[in-house]
Amino acid sequence: MKLATLKDGTRDGQLMVVSRDLKTAQLADGIARTLQHALDDWTFIAPQLDAIYQELNRGGGRRSFDFEPGNCMAPLPRAYQWADGSAYVNHVELVRKARGADMPASFWEDPLMYQGGSDDFLGPADDIRLMHEEWGIDFEAEVAVITDDVPMGATADQAHQCIRLLMLANDVSLRNLIPEELAKGFGFVQSKPSTSFSPVAVTPDELGDAWKGGKVHLPLLSTWNGKLVGKPQAGVDMVFNFPQLIAHLAKSRNVRAGSIIGSGTVSNKDAKRGYSCIAEQRCLEMIAGGEPVTPYMAFGDTIRIEMLDDGKSVFGAIAQTVKQA
Amino acid sequence: MKLATLKDGTRDGQLMVVSRDLKTAQLADGIARTLQHALDDWTFIAPQLDAIYQELNRGGGRRSFDFEPGNCMAPLPRAYQWADGSAYVNHVELVRKARGADMPASFWEDPLMYQGGSDDFLGPADDIRLMHEEWGIDFEAEVAVITDDVPMGATADQAHQCIRLLMLANDVSLRNLIPEELAKGFGFVQSKPSTSFSPVAVTPDELGDAWKGGKVHLPLLSTWNGKLVGKPQAGVDMVFNFPQLIAHLAKSRNVRAGSIIGSGTVSNKDAKRGYSCIAEQRCLEMIAGGEPVTPYMAFGDTIRIEMLDDGKSVFGAIAQTVKQA
Repeated sequence: MKLATLKDGTRDGQLMVVSRDLKTAQLADGIARTLQHALDDWTFIAPQLDAIYQELNRGGGRRSFDFEPGNCMAPLPRAYQWADGSAYVNHVELVRKARGADMPASFWEDPLMYQGGSDDFLGPADDIRLMHEEWGIDFEAEVAVITDDVPMGATADQAHQCIRLLMLANDVSLRNLIPEELAKGFGFVQSKPSTSFSPVAVTPDELGDAWKGGKVHLPLLSTWNGKLVGKPQAGVDMVFNFPQLIAHLAKSRNVRAGSIIGSGTVSNKDAKRGYSCIAEQRCLEMIAGGEPVTPYMAFGDTIRIEMLDDGKSVFGAIAQTVKQA
Repeated sequence: MKLATLKDGTRDGQLMVVSRDLKTAQLADGIARTLQHALDDWTFIAPQLDAIYQELNRGGGRRSFDFEPGNCMAPLPRAYQWADGSAYVNHVELVRKARGADMPASFWEDPLMYQGGSDDFLGPADDIRLMHEEWGIDFEAEVAVITDDVPMGATADQAHQCIRLLMLANDVSLRNLIPEELAKGFGFVQSKPSTSFSPVAVTPDELGDAWKGGKVHLPLLSTWNGKLVGKPQAGVDMVFNFPQLIAHLAKSRNVRAGSIIGSGTVSNKDAKRGYSCIAEQRCLEMIAGGEPVTPYMAFGDTIRIEMLDDGKSVFGAIAQTVKQA
């Protein structure tokens, strides 16, 4: 099943069911007004949404209309939780190597995760509005899941059963604000502005064999100013799978329905697969030549993040332009 | 105006208006079902709630009933943002001194703040259920504000105008999980379980002269196992006021209605005022005698956090028991 949220001028938008080919959609009003409402009572609501989905896929849908990603908010325009892991430890190691810092061995066994702001997400086609280029504007292409309720102390196996939806994320980062902020020891606040999400969120079964072992086994495509710069396999080099990330988060507290958990920047050890964030490319340049060559994003730059399965877009594309606020 | 949320078995509860003396309450159904709904459209909703409030204070209220803090959820049982500052820098300095670390001078000018989990708050009388005493269970008594929408880049003066409500918080901390987690550099995830809030949230005008300069000028009382252990003045030694904390958060992103911003553990330089968290007392003991004497909380321990104005409870009391999950 594929779900999206129509931009209607309200804070939470309206829940839509979207056909598998992303061509048509139908409002879910009468079943659940918003995606959060559906997640709050998933067992009861999901089968009703699925009935619409089947109808749309058969070319039906009494009140269907053309699906337009540009009219989408993030599937959850605001959420009660956004916790972002760093599951591609290769990326972490590279970043640290570039600044001459060793990586603690524990990073291979204990997931890095930060709590992000979740009150103001961007839709897939919304402009990324920021005040200063000098902040070092970077994209970060990621995969993310949305959970049902996960009880405190849940194991990874238990957490696996609580994954309801998957989507893509652009976890925009302000690289030049990060060193000073992280040095304070309390994590990211100012250096992580609003995160953007793909037009649709999909149930795991939509991925077929590509959803295996709690990972998505498809390449994640990042196209910066029209040039494909990254196509790493999201299922490769992911040291912690989504169930492990969720279990990490749930160690000492309940994780409630509608929580979004991110994979961190998707990154393969094979550098030929390119990059999902500019910082990684700059690290490679620094290790190779002593200084970074590729600049961060400028106002006017575009970024497109997408995942294809047999040439077909699974989640629709995040396609944004950076603009001055 | 004083507002609270009735525990009704749903995830968000029902909004109530509570009389100034905390004796009676009336449901706000027909006006706004939840506090978040009220905050989403505050200018339109607040005057309607205030009409009920005036009626309750006159001893009226057609459908009023006895107010029972034990039936309350947190005013916002889940929120889109919980960002907690460390505005009482004295507390930060003390904690660092105890472990032999200097404090960077910048900590006096640039607020420390962490992004907390906001999907699963506890009500004022809910048990604090945790799995292991060995995690080092500690209370943290704080003041918190709830904002309206705050635009990105807002100044402190602009942020000041966006403060809608105030409440008390118990930002429970797992002290023995903190050192390892903070060493990873990404802030708190496992070491900050669910936060609890006072029964009622109040508009700033309820505080009269005690709300001045973006600070609350009243003592915050912490009573641990029936013994008053802290009564620091919340308006003293608060290095960053709430408007400054909000402006810090809004530097690179919009802060949306219903965001909760905390003061951090209230702490006075005058040690005779006692403590708002056990860690601070242990730091003093370590500085004085080389080792901490006071243990952290045990299962069965109780904690009561309250603020009185002329002997009357402003927010009602947080009164919780720690239990094994």
